[in-house]
Formats: sequence, structure tokens, C-alpha cells
Amino acid sequence: MAARPAIDAARLRLRLEELSRFGRPPGGTFADGVSRVAYSAADIDGRAYVSQLMRDAGLGVRVDPAGNMIARRAGLAANLRPIVFGSHVDSVPNGGNFDGALGVLASIGVIDALNAATVVTRHPLEVVVWTNEEGVAFGNGLDGSRAAAGERTANEADQVWNGTRKGDAIKRIGGDPDRIGDARRQPGSVHCYLELHIEQGGTLDHAGIPIGIVEGIVAIDRYEAVVTGTPNHAGTTPMPMRQDALVAAARLVLAVQEIVTSEPGRQVGTVGQLNVTPNAPNVIPGSVRHTIELRDVSQEKIARLADRIRERAAAIGRESGVTIAISPTSRHAAAMAHPVIQQTIEHAADGLTLAHRRLPSGAGHDAQMMATLGPMGMIFVPSVGSISHSPREFTRFDDCARGTSVLLETVLAMDQTTVGP
Amino acid sequence: MAARPAIDAARLRLRLEELSRFGRPPGGTFADGVSRVAYSAADIDGRAYVSQLMRDAGLGVRVDPAGNMIARRAGLAANLRPIVFGSHVDSVPNGGNFDGALGVLASIGVIDALNAATVVTRHPLEVVVWTNEEGVAFGNGLDGSRAAAGERTANEADQVWNGTRKGDAIKRIGGDPDRIGDARRQPGSVHCYLELHIEQGGTLDHAGIPIGIVEGIVAIDRYEAVVTGTPNHAGTTPMPMRQDALVAAARLVLAVQEIVTSEPGRQVGTVGQLNVTPNAPNVIPGSVRHTIELRDVSQEKIARLADRIRERAAAIGRESGVTIAISPTSRHAAAMAHPVIQQTIEHAADGLTLAHRRLPSGAGHDAQMMATLGPMGMIFVPSVGSISHSPREFTRFDDCARGTSVLLETVLAMDQTTVGP
Repeated sequence: MAARPAIDAARLRLRLEELSRFGRPPGGTFADGVSRVAYSAADIDGRAYVSQLMRDAGLGVRVDPAGNMIARRAGLAANLRPIVFGSHVDSVPNGGNFDGALGVLASIGVIDALNAATVVTRHPLEVVVWTNEEGVAFGNGLDGSRAAAGERTANEADQVWNGTRKGDAIKRIGGDPDRIGDARRQPGSVHCYLELHIEQGGTLDHAGIPIGIVEGIVAIDRYEAVVTGTPNHAGTTPMPMRQDALVAAARLVLAVQEIVTSEPGRQVGTVGQLNVTPNAPNVIPGSVRHTIELRDVSQEKIARLADRIRERAAAIGRESGVTIAISPTSRHAAAMAHPVIQQTIEHAADGLTLAHRRLPSGAGHDAQMMATLGPMGMIFVPSVGSISHSPREFTRFDDCARGTSVLLETVLAMDQTTVGP
Repeated sequence: MAARPAIDAARLRLRLEELSRFGRPPGGTFADGVSRVAYSAADIDGRAYVSQLMRDAGLGVRVDPAGNMIARRAGLAANLRPIVFGSHVDSVPNGGNFDGALGVLASIGVIDALNAATVVTRHPLEVVVWTNEEGVAFGNGLDGSRAAAGERTANEADQVWNGTRKGDAIKRIGGDPDRIGDARRQPGSVHCYLELHIEQGGTLDHAGIPIGIVEGIVAIDRYEAVVTGTPNHAGTTPMPMRQDALVAAARLVLAVQEIVTSEPGRQVGTVGQLNVTPNAPNVIPGSVRHTIELRDVSQEKIARLADRIRERAAAIGRESGVTIAISPTSRHAAAMAHPVIQQTIEHAADGLTLAHRRLPSGAGHDAQMMATLGPMGMIFVPSVGSISHSPREFTRFDDCARGTSVLLETVLAMDQTTVGP
């Protein structure tokens, strides 16, 4: 009888440290983080390292036209759809060693555990390394998973970044930009998609809870606010005669904060970018442009908040003698985790006696694209101090192993579970 | 018996139009404004035009080591100190035809009026064209009047702007940078200094009053506020866990507005320049730097307002979990107009049955430097729509003539007035 499969925590840690060498600053250590921007030499080397791990685990590895690396382990029943799980190995510049990398190495760790216990699942298993999740290169992000979801636009191959054409970058990692459409997977062709990732937010770390069960990946609506006042001499224009665009914008920044926090829930609203014109110490600001970004798993909720912000902006404009125009600039739909998978992750955590909490993902992930193809679920582990996209990003190795064990148990449970549409 | 001297309004208008040709955009008209930056070819040509007008008026013209053009008309009493009046002919790029130019041409118009009426004053008269009032070139401003006040630093000649050394620029307009100290005038050596200027603010235009009697040129205190929060992921950081530097800065911007307007008076406070870091739509602002500029004729008042702003900033910092540091970056003393000259201007306006109002000058002028040498007074005329430093800057020619008549009457009255220290 086969042993109960179990994660090798020491090997997981070793591999996190080994992968961190690809893109590490010269002379640095693990603590100095990594710059493994997609399509770069460091990315190519990191992918080669991971590809070898996959082969060492006995998996056949293919690279799809988008450059996604897909390692397959056969299942007992040839007609069942695959359980797909994985993440990405690219990073932001001066990024950390856990964002993406943990999910990939944990997935290989799951295969190793099954191999060691000689467990064969009913469903085929596919470990995926998605291409260019971060989008530092070429600016879009989710390059590989968007291709799998059929959401790549035809002309993306012609984008140029840092002097390189995207099509050429894709070729460099073994993809085929001319056949990018063949990277598309059919909706319903996947039994489920699972992803382990660091939380990036501070909810789990703050609460001291090792396992997060993602309810969904938030919708993101972005707006641009243009506040138009009258630029004028800061010395000669009496206070009551001013149409100061920055004073009005300051009121709007506070209104965003107040309106977003006026309802219970985990929605967030941010004014992250703000530019003043002419931006001189002795000139009353004539115009201000700033972003407003709203995120929540409920698109209806952030649309309602946006309406309230617009109403308030109109009132501020009237009261301040300025005009405020707010226009949408981008809209990303929410991706809900399947309730059955959420429940399965919860049972897996309970079985391992690990505390857990349900929470939304405020950040985007490849899982949001995979959610368009079939049931999706995500497992979060705490990031110390909620730091990510930084060399100081750190998830305790014990927590990495705990999350990987939950992933393993979830894979095994989902292998036995039929999920409705 | 001599005729009562009177201003030739038509000639004044003609000369404003003629001077506007030097620095006018190619193919443009008077309405297209002027770019007559100090030390430029347009400035040199404009000065030559004015110098000729001075000579035509029978005046001897000298250029002092700072490049100031000084035209002297002898008085009846050889031992009396001169009545000095004038302004500047340099402009900002895309500036207007009245800022500075009016004061210079009005001063020459006063001499013409005295000549026509064969009036000789007791005091010698000096019409001055000050060098580089605006400070577009080399950044300081008040170049000529600062030299007269002995406030030029030794190393200013070595400043480089647009590839030109300041010393060479001064030579180009006939000055002598090696003898800049000789441009200094002794405190007490001037009977009084008078300057006619457009208001730049909107007080007179708004009230429909043709003559402004300047109470003083405001003190200007500038501060830099540095708001330091924590940059973080805009999607994953719950609202209560944020230390958003921009939200705190918005509160401070509104606090400046509120505190400055909480006391009666004409003090102004402006946040004109504000920069956000990292300034990305999806990152909570980690730090914000912004200016705070306070102006009033009372230095004590703006120091008190700054104290209140600092107290409020500390409270905002505590409440928002950010730190706010406010440090002074520059301080310009106020320059009060002499009460006797204010009264003399008032009587002159009354004598011409012109409505008048006392008001501070929120903008800096050469007069503030001359106030360090002796009694100073300024006459303002309305600028339509309070527009200045723009091609759209306009003062009705009738108002130009009215202001010039008040200048003439003030010169004549001051010639008969002894001013205490």
C-alpha cells in the first residue's frame, strides 16, 4: 500500500534558494531579492532550471506558442480533463523570491510527493509556468494566461519594449508568436485550476493565520479625474478669487477615501498618481489630473461607489469654481473562485489543522484568466509585513510548506470531486 | 507763467506699442505679447529704444555696473537728493506689454510733461530702468535693484544660464560685472523712490477702481512639506492598514487653505507645487513633497499662520500614521511703502478726481529693494481680468494715462515734501 504523500519542506526551501540565483544582484544573497523580468536572460535561465526540475520529476515538458511551460503527468482515466496548477517565475525589477516562484516550486513539490508515494491520480495533472505575469516587459501582464484564455490581441507581437519586439521576445523563450492563437484552451477543457501564491496584502500576516482561501480576484476599475481651475499669480490673487485646482483635487482625494470606507466590506480605493500643472511654488495650480482606482470582488459595488464619487466631484466643482471631469480608463472584471474549490481548500486546511480565513485577492493573478476556462481556486500564504514586489518580500519557509501541503491535499481532493458549471 | 504739466496720453500709448515690437513673436501684433527676457537681443534692442527716448527728452543717460540705465534731470537745488522713479523693460517669455514697460514709459512721460511745461523741480530727478527684474534669466530676479541695494552676492557673475555666464550677460548690456559693488547706492542717498506698475492681482479691476495705493510689498515665506507614508500595493492593502501619504497631504493642503482664510486680512497661502512618489495608479503613495507659500505685509502674521499649519500637520501625521516634516526654504522680508508717500499719492489721485484704494502688493517689485535705501511708494493701475505674465495682459490705455498722471502729481508733490526717516 502506498504511503500518504507528503511535501518535502527542506527541498522546497532549497529550490526557492536555488531559483533565486537567476536574477540575483551580483554578489548578493537570497535576502537581496531578484530581478527576473519576463523574457530576460535571468528569466530564460530560471525557466531552464524549473524545466529541469520538471523533467527530474519524470514529467514531459512542452512550451506552448505563448511561451508557457506545461509539464504533464498522466492520470488513470484517459478521458478526464486535467487538473492544472502552477504560477509564474518572472518578477518585477528588485522583486522578491516568493511572488510566483513559490507557486511554481510548490506545484513541482506536489508532483514529487505523489511520485514518492507512488500515487497516480484519476485526472491528468498539468504544472504550468505562465509567461510574463508581472507585465513589466511590454506593460500588459498575464501574457501567458491571457493567451490560454484567448484574450490576446492580434497586434501584441508588434509591441516594442526596451528595443525588443514582443514577437522576438516570445521566440526567445521558445514560443511561436505566429501561432499565438494555438495557445488558447477551450472553455470547459480544464477540470479545475489551482494556484498557491503569497498574499501580498497583510491580512493573513496581521492575523497570524497561515492559510488564505481566496474568494475571488477583485474587479479593478480605473478612472482619470481632470480638475480644471485657473492658474494665477500666487501673490496677487486674493483667496476668495481663486479657482485652485489642487485645493479642489485635495477635497476629491479625501472624498474617495471617505466614500470607499463608508460601506462595510473589503473594497479599496486609491488615488495613486496625481500631477499638478504648472506645478510651481508661486503659481496657483491651474489643473490637476489624478487616477482613481477602485477594487472589489463585487463589480456592482465599485460601480456604485464610482457613482457616489462622481456626485461628490460635481458638488466640489460647484463649490470651488472649478470643473471636474471623471472618465473611465480601464475596467477589469472580477474572477470568482468556485465555491466547491473554496470548500475543498477549507477541508484540506482543516485536515492539516491549519487555521484559515477567506479573503479576496486584491492583486491580479493568472488564475483570473483561468477562471474563464473552468473552476478556479487559490490558496494564499502570509507575506511578512505584507511586503511584496521588494527584496524584503518574505514568507516563512514553514508557511511555504504549509501552503504547499494544502495545495497537495486540494489536488488530491479535487481529483475525487465533480464540479458543476 | 508755466503751463500746468500734463501727460500726453496718445504718446504714451504709441510708445507702449513701439516698445512692444522688441520681442514680439514674428508676424504678431501688440495683442500677441512679448518675450523680452533680460540680457537677450530683444532686451538690448528695447533698452536702446528707451535710451533714445530719454536722450530725446534731454536727459543724460548712464549705465551703472549692474546694467541699470539711469537718466538724470538736474534740479534747482544742487544739494538735494534725487527723486528716483522707473521700472523695468524685461519680461517673462510670452509675457505682456504692460508689466514693467508701463512704469518706464510713464516715467519718461513725466519728464516730457515737465519739459513741455518748462517746470524744473527742486530735487534732481532720476528715471531708472532696472536690469532683469523678472529673473527668468539666471533665476534670481531684481538683478539691478538688488545691486543698487548692495544685496548682490560676489559669485553671482559666475552663474551660468542657457550657456551664458552672468558676467558676460551684464557686459552685453553695458554693465561691468567686476565693479558690481559700485552700483550700490548709499542708504539715505535718495529723497524717495516711486514706481507705477500694473496690479497683476484683480482687486482694482474687480472693483472698477483706477488707482491703487500700495501699502507695502508682501513678505514671502516658503516652506517644503515632506509627507512620508508607506508605499504599498493598491489592491492588497486594506484601507485601515494604509499609511497613504497623498491622503495626508490632501488634508494638509486643505488645512493651509483653511488656516490662511481663518483670519481677516489679505494674506494668501498657496500649495503650488506637489509631487507624489512613486506616482503610479496601482501603488499607494509612499511620499509627497509640496511647497507652502505664505505672503502678507505682516511678517509676524505669516509666521503665526505657519506655526498653526505646523501644529495641524503634526496632528494630521499622528492621525494618519505618516510623518510630516515642514522646513523653511526661503524668506523674503516685507517692504513697506512710506506713509507720507501713500498719503501724497492719495492726495494726487483726489486732485485728479480718481477713485483709489489702498492695497498690498502680492508680487515682488524693484521698489522692495529701493525701500532699503529710503522712502518708497508705488502706484498700481488695474490689469484687466487680473491677467499678467501672459500675452493677454492688458491695462486700458486710459488707465495707463491716469496712473501716469498720478505719478506726475506725486513727483511734483514729493518735490515739495520733506519725509522723515
